[in-house]
Amino acid sequence: MNKIYLALLSLGVSFSASAQSDTTMMRDIYKHALTHGQAYDDLRHLTKEIGNRIAGSPKAEQAVRWSESLMKALPFDRVYLQDVDVPYWDRGPAEKAILTESQEPLKVLALGGSVGTPKGGIEAEVIEVEYLSDLKKFGGDVYGKIVFVNKPWDESLVETGMAYGLNTSQRSRGPAEVAKLGGIAYLFRSLSSSTRDDYPHTGGTRYTQGIDSIPAMAISVVSAERLHDALQKNPKAKVFLEQQSGWKGIVPTHNVIAEWKGTEHPDQIITIGGHIDSWDVGEGAHDNGTGITGTLDAVRTLMKIGYKPKHTIRVVFYMNEENGVQGSMKYGEAAAENKETMIAAIESDAGGFAPRGFDIKASRQAVDWIQQQWKPLFEEQYWVSRFLQGSPGVDSGIWAAQFPNTVMFNFRPDPHRYFDLHHTEKDVFEAVDRRELQSGVAAIASLLYLVDSHIGEMPQ
Amino acid sequence: MNKIYLALLSLGVSFSASAQSDTTMMRDIYKHALTHGQAYDDLRHLTKEIGNRIAGSPKAEQAVRWSESLMKALPFDRVYLQDVDVPYWDRGPAEKAILTESQEPLKVLALGGSVGTPKGGIEAEVIEVEYLSDLKKFGGDVYGKIVFVNKPWDESLVETGMAYGLNTSQRSRGPAEVAKLGGIAYLFRSLSSSTRDDYPHTGGTRYTQGIDSIPAMAISVVSAERLHDALQKNPKAKVFLEQQSGWKGIVPTHNVIAEWKGTEHPDQIITIGGHIDSWDVGEGAHDNGTGITGTLDAVRTLMKIGYKPKHTIRVVFYMNEENGVQGSMKYGEAAAENKETMIAAIESDAGGFAPRGFDIKASRQAVDWIQQQWKPLFEEQYWVSRFLQGSPGVDSGIWAAQFPNTVMFNFRPDPHRYFDLHHTEKDVFEAVDRRELQSGVAAIASLLYLVDSHIGEMPQ
Repeated sequence: MNKIYLALLSLGVSFSASAQSDTTMMRDIYKHALTHGQAYDDLRHLTKEIGNRIAGSPKAEQAVRWSESLMKALPFDRVYLQDVDVPYWDRGPAEKAILTESQEPLKVLALGGSVGTPKGGIEAEVIEVEYLSDLKKFGGDVYGKIVFVNKPWDESLVETGMAYGLNTSQRSRGPAEVAKLGGIAYLFRSLSSSTRDDYPHTGGTRYTQGIDSIPAMAISVVSAERLHDALQKNPKAKVFLEQQSGWKGIVPTHNVIAEWKGTEHPDQIITIGGHIDSWDVGEGAHDNGTGITGTLDAVRTLMKIGYKPKHTIRVVFYMNEENGVQGSMKYGEAAAENKETMIAAIESDAGGFAPRGFDIKASRQAVDWIQQQWKPLFEEQYWVSRFLQGSPGVDSGIWAAQFPNTVMFNFRPDPHRYFDLHHTEKDVFEAVDRRELQSGVAAIASLLYLVDSHIGEMPQ
Repeated sequence: MNKIYLALLSLGVSFSASAQSDTTMMRDIYKHALTHGQAYDDLRHLTKEIGNRIAGSPKAEQAVRWSESLMKALPFDRVYLQDVDVPYWDRGPAEKAILTESQEPLKVLALGGSVGTPKGGIEAEVIEVEYLSDLKKFGGDVYGKIVFVNKPWDESLVETGMAYGLNTSQRSRGPAEVAKLGGIAYLFRSLSSSTRDDYPHTGGTRYTQGIDSIPAMAISVVSAERLHDALQKNPKAKVFLEQQSGWKGIVPTHNVIAEWKGTEHPDQIITIGGHIDSWDVGEGAHDNGTGITGTLDAVRTLMKIGYKPKHTIRVVFYMNEENGVQGSMKYGEAAAENKETMIAAIESDAGGFAPRGFDIKASRQAVDWIQQQWKPLFEEQYWVSRFLQGSPGVDSGIWAAQFPNTVMFNFRPDPHRYFDLHHTEKDVFEAVDRRELQSGVAAIASLLYLVDSHIGEMPQ
């Protein structure tokens, strides 16, 4: 028996011992999260007692206070609110869109950030395109018209987030581009993964400084198809639009933060959380009620099974992800100002469906190491197997620029159903399955445990 | 450049070419199945126009004729019905279970195969246990009583099929064991993954030849908890039970079979399918409407994109999986009699949720090879990553004894939601998500393509 063999043997033994304690720990985590976890009950309260909560609204502030009370009921070392000023956008009364010739109503929702129509609404002919770039062909004809961007969703992608990403820029920059050409309103085919969806999907849009803003609405897929058919029959068909949405000024509100002090490295911080605000339709259940109740329940799970973290675990519920990301900007600025050491971040903002894994913002070597060391702990028994290099969540991504070395994990639940209900009236508590949500809590708690226990071993 | 390097290089080139054509083929399969697939629409017809279909019932025969017509509309070389005689069990009018002292109704369903109570029902005291083996403690006291097996589901298992399997034997052999001890009826806590489920879950039970049979019912989890509480307060509490179920003789019916002839090895057969019958509650949507409409749509997908199979692909809709497996027995017997060469089988009978992979009945070497060759084609882009050695489905498993060398694939969709609705009124069309189902169709079609194209390369 030579020395190298002995060295390997001792390495083997130490690895086994560590792997065994990880296995035992994860078994306890899964058992607790699936059997006694509380994310689902917390989510019921958030969705049914509070409801949707756009940043700056009284309900968003109610969600802040409720979250603070939830955190204060747990053995955190510190719970506090971080001041954030957000721009408050209000939809006003229900929007109207009517196909003039048949007086058929079209299902629409104002895009977040949109201005209203003049009082009494507007009526105009419609130019339909798939891409904003197609407007070039129409030259001066856009003037005085409603522009209708009717780009179908790419159904062939299992990764629905990619299909979404392919088309978000037409939602965000469309109205400003159309305004430049003299268009008077913007109708945008909803970013829905279902071809039979009659719910409009809202979402943010942005006006470029100095360009006149125009009213902008999302139209349901079914209504978009109807409008398309009407325009095929009669290219001069007109549409009537009315909405009274608009910005209502700056409102002071908060990020909600809780800290669980590390026993070995209290100055090294692992941030975990998601955004607390939602759009102003539905109940913000999958987007992002499951993200905040799930990450808090992951931390609660570690507390309940008696774990003591080495590093400080900081839960952050970011305000205003949906229409301004002021919360994560403020969080990053304050952390940079305080010269904090941010070793890792875990974010959940892709729904509460069955957990599939994590996208990881880290070096190739670190991701390879995670695939070798951690993936086998999850894969067979817990059905979690996706550990790929990828982007952080939106909120962590905001402060990633200030903390380029922070290893960031973006929770990835199953992507099939999310964009059926994303930003719609359908995003309600009933669309969440308890086992799927709690299984995600267990996966997140397991990752948090592994990060806290083994991040020192991870290659840079 | 030495010879070994050259050899490796040429291997590399040939692998790339094959991998590239597999990649292109799978892209086409996914695009078609997700965009133009018809499983979801077929499923709507099966569930809404026909409904549930216990073997031997007129609706099961209606499903047979409809399936035959679906197959005949496709370019199969042969479509035929295979005669199968099945035992027909009928539930009769709605069952009753009442907690006598409070006159509270308990939610129950007769277990499939159960006899009825005497006319006018029965009333008796209840002995509650977690395990049948606990009955030993009660000795002669079981005589004249109702036995209530109240074993909670193990919520800590992500693999819900395993939790189900832990307790099915108490459903199937319980009544006969209780009858031996003189018990007069059997109440069985439903095999549900939800602790808040007020729907009873039916399922098969078996009486041992020569032992008196007794009435057997599944009780909902919520009702089981109520009964438990009542018995804690008053161990002498009585329950009234009434049901009129029973066996109604042997009925001739069919397996539905379609063959697509192989261009290179027409005598080598790949069987693909699932069971066409269902329990007699709900609509048999996930169990197993998605299994038959999904596997047929997988074959249809290959037809639509112009694929020509090397081996004969035989679609089989087995009759009577739920309470007798007469269909798969008959299929296996006929195939053995005809000395057929069965190279592979693919079965779908675990629901129409997001596809996760396949359990594989094959040698360790074959499974390792599949993990190396095929898993990378599915994993990142299509989110399908589970290729583990495991059991075949129930129907393929029946004829596996006669064909021990057939490589068998058991489709594994996500397991989180299945046992919430399995064998209940909740298993309806609305519980199926179109994208999840069609993504499963794409995964199954891709596997079928890979098996047909590359099974010759697979190690034994």
